[in-house]
Amino acid sequence: MTAAPSARPTATSPESDALRALYADWSDIIATTPDLTMRLFRSIFDEWHQPTREPEDVTYREETVGGVPGIWALPTGADASQVLLYTHGGGFAVGSAASHRKLAAHVAKALGVTAFVLDYRRAPEHPHPAQVEDGVAVFTALTGRGVAPAGITTIGDSAGGNLAVAVALSLREQGLPLPGRVVAFSPWLDMENTGTTLVTNDATDALITVPLLEGMIAGVLAGGAVPATTPLANPLHADLTGLPRLYLNAGGAESLLDDAVRLAERARAAGVDVTLTVAEGMQHVFPFLAGNAPEADAEIAALAAWYRG
Amino acid sequence: MTAAPSARPTATSPESDALRALYADWSDIIATTPDLTMRLFRSIFDEWHQPTREPEDVTYREETVGGVPGIWALPTGADASQVLLYTHGGGFAVGSAASHRKLAAHVAKALGVTAFVLDYRRAPEHPHPAQVEDGVAVFTALTGRGVAPAGITTIGDSAGGNLAVAVALSLREQGLPLPGRVVAFSPWLDMENTGTTLVTNDATDALITVPLLEGMIAGVLAGGAVPATTPLANPLHADLTGLPRLYLNAGGAESLLDDAVRLAERARAAGVDVTLTVAEGMQHVFPFLAGNAPEADAEIAALAAWYRG
Repeated sequence: MTAAPSARPTATSPESDALRALYADWSDIIATTPDLTMRLFRSIFDEWHQPTREPEDVTYREETVGGVPGIWALPTGADASQVLLYTHGGGFAVGSAASHRKLAAHVAKALGVTAFVLDYRRAPEHPHPAQVEDGVAVFTALTGRGVAPAGITTIGDSAGGNLAVAVALSLREQGLPLPGRVVAFSPWLDMENTGTTLVTNDATDALITVPLLEGMIAGVLAGGAVPATTPLANPLHADLTGLPRLYLNAGGAESLLDDAVRLAERARAAGVDVTLTVAEGMQHVFPFLAGNAPEADAEIAALAAWYRG
Repeated sequence: MTAAPSARPTATSPESDALRALYADWSDIIATTPDLTMRLFRSIFDEWHQPTREPEDVTYREETVGGVPGIWALPTGADASQVLLYTHGGGFAVGSAASHRKLAAHVAKALGVTAFVLDYRRAPEHPHPAQVEDGVAVFTALTGRGVAPAGITTIGDSAGGNLAVAVALSLREQGLPLPGRVVAFSPWLDMENTGTTLVTNDATDALITVPLLEGMIAGVLAGGAVPATTPLANPLHADLTGLPRLYLNAGGAESLLDDAVRLAERARAAGVDVTLTVAEGMQHVFPFLAGNAPEADAEIAALAAWYRG
């Protein structure tokens, strides 16, 4: 029998329970509030920052870059010529720079670089490709300021991991310089819900369900007006040739594990330098536990080693 | 006819609309969601940080002090011997260190000091005097670390402004050294709902209503088990003799204006050095607009001048 989401896999730390508990709580709210508005959906998902400890020695600055508002995370002594262009997760519809500030700051600090967390336009008010366009606009504005493209990493989690890939693909399509690296934590890529782990990890994933994904897909794809196989909305259907070095991860317990696995396979087949790590027993976007659980800190340390490699 | 809360008083800045709009949105949710759970109430009130801009040149550190978790705000170059013991607002039931981090950091930065924002135990799970006890525990732990009592300012907003006063009163009752200063933004003090501005400003206050206060009172006073005239729960009934220098403010448009006015009168009558500022047309805890609206920045600058005076 598969463990229920409320049970901790023996491989994981007690500290990692905080993320599973938050997801279980959200799932309970979603299940018991059939008329939950998008307004309240956004409110509860802005609690995504709660499992993340405030990182020390990081300051912040709000700015609008390329027309897109966001928050800079500026670790003490960071190399300002290196920028993480961080696109937050939340099904393209929820989440924010505020909900991901601490996570992005932990990553930036470990890598010794700066991060800009975008408040891109969200679905359903702004369907695809508004989110990709906003990421490209920030990238272009940064290079226009003199940041070398190779010094920029597009990075994100969940739907924001999709965007980290899609922004690079969009730049390539436009014949523009590419970022030096692409990073996606627990990327959500498949707009057709064909991943095998949607079924096989359904009992262990405390948050992601097919109905939840269907609602998010309807929003970002404008109720079907945008095809689910559009490469910039669903990079599993994209030609990945020429993508920069790619770092992917996923939790072993999550329903979207298969998205990361399939992207890694397809990118490798296209000749991309790919690293994929899978953390046994962990939930969706487990780096949210940064500063609080060893799995998240180890993952961010591994990312830092890859970044420097 | 009195202006509706959605209309901006001519005396106030366009930028100040953000706080009024957030309150109007919350009020709409409260009015249209009769079964709004405390869980969701806490979720929406954690958005209280949204009108506040990220202050630059401040780092953060989570710590448990005197058994109470919280977030340090550490402005660059701050005098670490001076500490703001910041108790957040939210009717003793909602709000958090996270919702008030940026506000406390703006104040600390303007004053050139550090701030510790407490996550005190909240009502209704923990009725009065749990919140006061937690504030006293942090104060005692700080002095135990060698911080001079006179270097500590108890400070808070709304219900947290009540706590800033009550913590000082509790220390006095216990014969312990007092903080050097007490600051309360838009304090909520009156657990009997007798303030005249509850009526006269009802049409201009975008958030506070008597039914909302009644719900919060039931929570913190354990459904009436704690009398509404208990001095440490309702400092309007306290002997204020011997309180340190006291800084109070309120918005001219808010229903709780009369709480600040009455506390100022009673403290003055008790011989306390009191400063009260009232910002015309502004809403409850308008310093939340720090970094975004001139009224908030001017108020924090005035507080800094008072602090140094």
